[in-house]
This record gives sequence, C-alpha cells and structure tokens, in this order.
Amino acid sequence: MIISKSDHLIQILPPKEVDLNTNLQFIIHTIGKAARQAARTLASCSTDQKNKALLLMADQIKTDQKEILDANLIDVTAAMKGGLNSSMVDRLKLSPESLDEVAEGIRHVARLPDPVGRILREWKRSNKLSFQKVSVPLGVIGMIYESRPNVTVDAAILCLKAGNACILRGGSEACHSNKALALSLQRALEASELPSTSIQLIPVTDREAIRILCEMDQYLDCLIPRGGKGLIKTIVEHARMPVMKHYEGICTAYVDKEANLTMAEQIILNAKCQRPSACNALETVLLHQKIALEFLKTAGEKLLQQGAELRCDPKTLALLPKELQKNFTLQIKKATKEDFQTEFLSLIVAIKIVDSLEEAIDHIENHGSHHSDLIITEDANNAEKFLRDIDSATVYWNASTRFTDGSEFGFGAEIGISTDKFHARGPVGLEELTSYKYLIRGNGQVRR
Amino acid sequence: MIISKSDHLIQILPPKEVDLNTNLQFIIHTIGKAARQAARTLASCSTDQKNKALLLMADQIKTDQKEILDANLIDVTAAMKGGLNSSMVDRLKLSPESLDEVAEGIRHVARLPDPVGRILREWKRSNKLSFQKVSVPLGVIGMIYESRPNVTVDAAILCLKAGNACILRGGSEACHSNKALALSLQRALEASELPSTSIQLIPVTDREAIRILCEMDQYLDCLIPRGGKGLIKTIVEHARMPVMKHYEGICTAYVDKEANLTMAEQIILNAKCQRPSACNALETVLLHQKIALEFLKTAGEKLLQQGAELRCDPKTLALLPKELQKNFTLQIKKATKEDFQTEFLSLIVAIKIVDSLEEAIDHIENHGSHHSDLIITEDANNAEKFLRDIDSATVYWNASTRFTDGSEFGFGAEIGISTDKFHARGPVGLEELTSYKYLIRGNGQVRR
Repeated sequence: MIISKSDHLIQILPPKEVDLNTNLQFIIHTIGKAARQAARTLASCSTDQKNKALLLMADQIKTDQKEILDANLIDVTAAMKGGLNSSMVDRLKLSPESLDEVAEGIRHVARLPDPVGRILREWKRSNKLSFQKVSVPLGVIGMIYESRPNVTVDAAILCLKAGNACILRGGSEACHSNKALALSLQRALEASELPSTSIQLIPVTDREAIRILCEMDQYLDCLIPRGGKGLIKTIVEHARMPVMKHYEGICTAYVDKEANLTMAEQIILNAKCQRPSACNALETVLLHQKIALEFLKTAGEKLLQQGAELRCDPKTLALLPKELQKNFTLQIKKATKEDFQTEFLSLIVAIKIVDSLEEAIDHIENHGSHHSDLIITEDANNAEKFLRDIDSATVYWNASTRFTDGSEFGFGAEIGISTDKFHARGPVGLEELTSYKYLIRGNGQVRR
Repeated sequence: MIISKSDHLIQILPPKEVDLNTNLQFIIHTIGKAARQAARTLASCSTDQKNKALLLMADQIKTDQKEILDANLIDVTAAMKGGLNSSMVDRLKLSPESLDEVAEGIRHVARLPDPVGRILREWKRSNKLSFQKVSVPLGVIGMIYESRPNVTVDAAILCLKAGNACILRGGSEACHSNKALALSLQRALEASELPSTSIQLIPVTDREAIRILCEMDQYLDCLIPRGGKGLIKTIVEHARMPVMKHYEGICTAYVDKEANLTMAEQIILNAKCQRPSACNALETVLLHQKIALEFLKTAGEKLLQQGAELRCDPKTLALLPKELQKNFTLQIKKATKEDFQTEFLSLIVAIKIVDSLEEAIDHIENHGSHHSDLIITEDANNAEKFLRDIDSATVYWNASTRFTDGSEFGFGAEIGISTDKFHARGPVGLEELTSYKYLIRGNGQVRR
C-alpha cells in the first residue's frame, strides 16, 4: 500500500518517520504509537488547555470553510455519479450553515464539565489508608465510521474533551471531506498547547486498515464502530480490544390493559412517526387483547393516516375494523415472523395482540434488541414489573422511546448509544469515555 | 468429540436435549442457551433467594466432602505422576480444612450487600421525565481458568451473588476436582429457588472448548480468563465479547530524594518479600541518585539478607558497597534490559538509579504493566505529580503495593485484578460484575 506524495493528509504523520514507500501496517502503527504518546500528555492536561484547543478548532473550521466545502463537493459529486441514493447523498453534504452548526457544537462541548478528575468515591480503611477512585481518560480510542463527515468532528472533540487521543477511520464516500475536516482540526491543535497527534485520521479507506486497527491492542484501548451491522460484525470478530458498539434498535411498546388510550396514541404516534429512521423509533407494538380493538380503532387509524404500514399478526388482522382495512388496503399486511425482529427504520410497524403482561415481556426479551422498550399503563405494579424484568439499556413507563438520546438525557453530547452491557450502556456521553484509577495515600502502611 | 455415558457431569446438561453422539459445539451451545435462560431468571431474583442458595451451597460442599476429596485425589495423583512441580501440586490439593474455608467463603459472600438494584444516579429533566440509573447483572459470564480448583467455587458464587449465570471451564489438571465441586454447587441450586443452570461447568478440557466459548457472543456477555499470559493472549485474539483480563503485575516503587528512608525500607521489604509470587508484589525499585547510596547500604542489605536477588543497573552496581558485593556475590547481578519489564514472581528485584521524578515516571509508563506503582516521599508535590501522571490501576504514596486486593480495598471479595481500563480496573469485586440500565418514568411525554 503506497500513499501518494500528493496526499496532503500525509502531514498528519510525523514527517521524519514516514517513508512513503512503506506499507499500510507501518503507517497505521506509526499513527498508533503517536496516539499513545499524545494520550499520555492529554491525560495530564488541564480543563482549560483542552477547552482552549476546542475553541481554536471551532474557529479553524470556519477559517477553512472553503477548503472543506471544496473537498466535500468532490465526495458529493462522486456519490451522485456512483448512484448513491438521495438520502445518503444528503447525509454526505456539508454547507456553510452545517459548518456553522459544527463549530457551534464544538463550542458547546468546550462549555461542558470536564469528565476527567471527578472523585467517584473516597473512603478510609481502619489502617488509615485513604482510597480515592478518580476518573481518568480511557487512553486511545479508535473510531470506525461510515458516510457522514461530521462524525469526524463529533468523535474527535468528544474524545479530546474526555482526555483521549483518537484515531479516525471514515468511509470512502466521505474521504475528501474527512481529510479536510481532520486537517483543519489538526491546524487548531498545532496552535494549541495539546499534541497535534491527539486527533489523527487514517489517510486511506482500505478495508485492510480496519483489520490492522482491530489487531493493534498495544496502542488502542477501545474501538467504537458506527455503521451497519456488517461493519460491526467484522469488527467484533477481529478486534482484540474492547468494542463499544451499537447494534440495532428494535424498540417495542406494550399497551397494557390498564393503559390510558389517549396517552398511548400520543406516545406511539410520536415514537413511530416523528423520525422513523432513528434507532430509538418504535418498530413493534404489543396490544393487550382487552384494549386492542379500541386502540386499533383510534390510534390504528391515526397511524394509517400518517402513512404507516401496519404488519399485523392474525389476531390483529381479525380485529382491525373492516372500514380501515378497506380504506388503507395497501398499508395493511400480514406480519411474518421476521417482522417482529426487524429494525425497519421506516414508517412500518409490526403489531401483535398478547394475552398478558408476561407474554409481552417474553416477546420483548426474545425478539427485541435490548435498546429501548416501553410500557403504557396506569397500573404502577404492572409498570414496575416491566421496568424490572425488561433487560434493555433504557426502559420507559408512559413516555416516548425517542428520548433515548444523550442530549435528552442531559448528557450534553453523545458519541452513540451502546447496546452492550459492558462499560457503557445506553447513551454514551463524555463520562462514558472515561475510565478510573485508584489513588492510595498512606504513611508507611505495610501488609501483614 | 464424544462424551462418555459414564461421565456423571452429563447431568449438568438438560437430559432430553443431549444426544451423546453430538459434538462439542452443540453441547457448549446448549450450555450457553441454558445459561442465558438462567440469567433472565436470576436478574429478577431477590437478595434473599440468592443468599439462601449460597448458604445451601456452603452446606452441600461439606456434605459432599468425601466425594470431592476422592475426586481431588485422582487429580493430585495424576499431577504427581505427571511430574508437576510441588508448588503446582500444592495449589491443586484440597483438604477437609480447605473445604471448611471454601464453605466459610461462601457464607461470607452471602453476608455481603447485594450489588444489584443499587440506584447509581437519579435525576429529573425540565419536562418532568424522571431518570434512574440502576445496577443490574451483566448476564452470562464465562470463566476460563487454570489449575486451582477453588476458583470453581469462588467464581461461581461471586457471579451468582451479582445475579449472573456463569459457565466455567477449568484446567485439565483439576478436572475431577472441578467436576465434583460444580456438581455439589448444582445440587444446592436444585434445592434452592434459583435455576440449577445458574452455574455450569464445561465437562471437557479440550482447547477447542475455549475457541467455541470465544465465538459464542450470543450467549456470553463477558469472558474472564485467569491464568498465564499464553491463555489470555489466545482469548483476547479470539473472543468476540468483552474480556476482563489480568495480564501481569510489573509493580515499581520509586524512592524519591525526599523519602523517609526508614519508611522506604519497611515498605519495600514488605512489597517485595512478604509474598513475592503475588501479582501486587514489587518487581522494580527506582532510586533517586541523591538517596541511592544510603538506601542500598541499609534497605539493600536487608533485601539481600532476606534472600532477594538484586539485578542492578550499572550505576547501582557502582554504588553498591563493596562489603555487600563480597558477602552476597551470588545474589547480585547486572540487570539486563529485559529485567526491567519482567514479572519475576519470585525473590528477584531489578534496581535502577534515576536522576529525577520525571525519569522515574517515564520509566514506569514505558516499562510497567499499569497494575500498581508506588512513590515513597515526604514531598506532597512530588507525590501528587506521581499520583496524577502514573496511569496505573492503583497508584500509591507511602504504602505497600501489596494492598491491591479486593479484601484490602474493603470490597469483601474479588474475582481478580483487572489490568484493563474498560469497565473494571483494579480489584474486581461484586459491583464490577454488574452493568446498569436506565428506568425512565413519565406521564405521557413525547419528543418534539
């Protein structure tokens, strides 16, 4: 793998160490080693030093606006020529306005509290040893993502605020945009007191780069993939370091027999229709048989009117008013088994009638993805049983699943939603990008 | 892989599902599926139900004492015939007294607070949504370990108390002992209100079983290996799920120019000599050049008297009093580069003279294993700089590194010491065997 001399991103690599004829493995290891060194420095940087660097970045992005938009145009043109669908092209596009938002996002992160140096716990033992558990950066984070170029900035600034060095590997579609954005961030770092290798972009988009990153556990403390299931599966199979992943959001609402049906209608319309492409949007609705007919008559009709396609189990089909079946023929289908474990990410909803709360819980545990699930009921006992027995990152009682989001949680910012149970679960904000260490202060204590 | 009908451990598998002619993959997947089901039940068990099961286990181990000791005798006899060294044979041996200790250990865990259901954080947003972050079990934990059969019990009961199902895969040397112990725990589970598949032992010790476990991420939430570096490396390379690992403890003490040398001597003798085979024992001592001669004259002599071998860098060799060099010729050697990054696990210590605190910190960051490191000084500024800049699980000021231990921390019990930064770092007690979920209670909130 040879990197052409004309590739300006080569500036990211320490100039003297790079032989342009060496292979990808060497280049990525050089990046890894530099990141590890940067992480050591970052770990002892002050909040003020980090925030100043972030503010410089916000300014630099706007200073480099023309260069970034020119690079972005190359990507967008190639995507359109390559026949990428219009929503994908939209996600790729940058504009002066979206760069304003990016810059404002950076300033916002600068204003958030520093997640490093928090005293998580303090105690003393009878031998007078004093223990302190304090938050520290994770170290070096590898970020592997697809398409959207603004992830380059989002990921970099959140890692930096939490004192981590990051290595970014974006998708080929956004290749020129990512390089321009990373270069801009690095220019700001060079003007700051932080190491310029705190943020590095892998200058190529070979799949081979992912394999090398996955095996580089001497330099990477964690990998965060953002993208389709295929990408995540590959990384899980090959990574030697922990992976913070977001598989999918098969979110389910259970409308209990004790539900307030007006509330149920409002919540389900919001959770399904407000932004169906979001991971926290609803995919399945379970209806207790006692309220099913009433719900279908009212909320069912509203869903159909908003253009939703209903994939119904046999009992639901049998109950669904003939009138609706006639007026919305094309939007009503028989559900397959697969429909109950699919993340549609569009205006489709699978509906099933259940006989009990227990059946609903079983369904969710066996078919859901442990992301966000919801019970709508006025019965506190049923609600608390659901909250206890559903093993998902976020479990709701009488509120829309669309609140599973770092900013709605009050985290200020998020790098993603973790569907894992190890380290971080649910929205991953700045605190979730830290680890901890124990500081133990004594006056000569020895162990007997 | 065929399991013989005479293998009594086959009782662990649900009898109808097992075709004795099927392969290892099928058997381990059956175990995995059963563990996943057990984990669901365990997650909603009460503290009382878990504690009662633990107390039954403590009794059952003593009831089954003869059976367990007979099985252990087979392992010990085989180990002696196979030429296993005597310290390894010692670690394998069980006795009525050691089983008393095992039973007492179980009762101790029953008395510890339940780590599940703790409210870690609670807050409300301006839209009146109420958020609760509560601790929940991790789910299913795979434990892969070598030699010592009491790990079978330790791992099983800690996992259980934290509401996790566990799958155990012990080493071949302790194969019969592990089976007898696991069977005894299962008998107690059968008499309890918990699923008997909460604790399962893989009934074979093929290396192939490890590979299968590593790929079984649909059933395992986490793998914990306990054993040599080779075992851990294999698991890190193949595991698709998070690994909570303990690499090695290359622990270093830095004796600052402002150290109280009497205290330094006491701490270093304790940290090096009290139990040199422990992971938290000292391997390297860095001496500030200003106090090096004085330290070598006094503490150096004591170390030699206690039988320690000193591996000295050139400056140390030059300073070391001629008298000592003559009296302890065989215990004084020139250090190689390798000596400063070796976990000796015996009475050997590498000694190096440094010119500054900064040099000491650099040495530790570049040669240590980020386990436990120590500064001895009366200068608070130097101490705080060391505590801040050393990126290790536990960092000490004026106390022995031997305190890195769950019970010395006051955790009540530990399953190991994590040298990772992800999820758990340092001593892994019951709390570190849990995850969390968010419970969100509303009254009809939707997202705008």
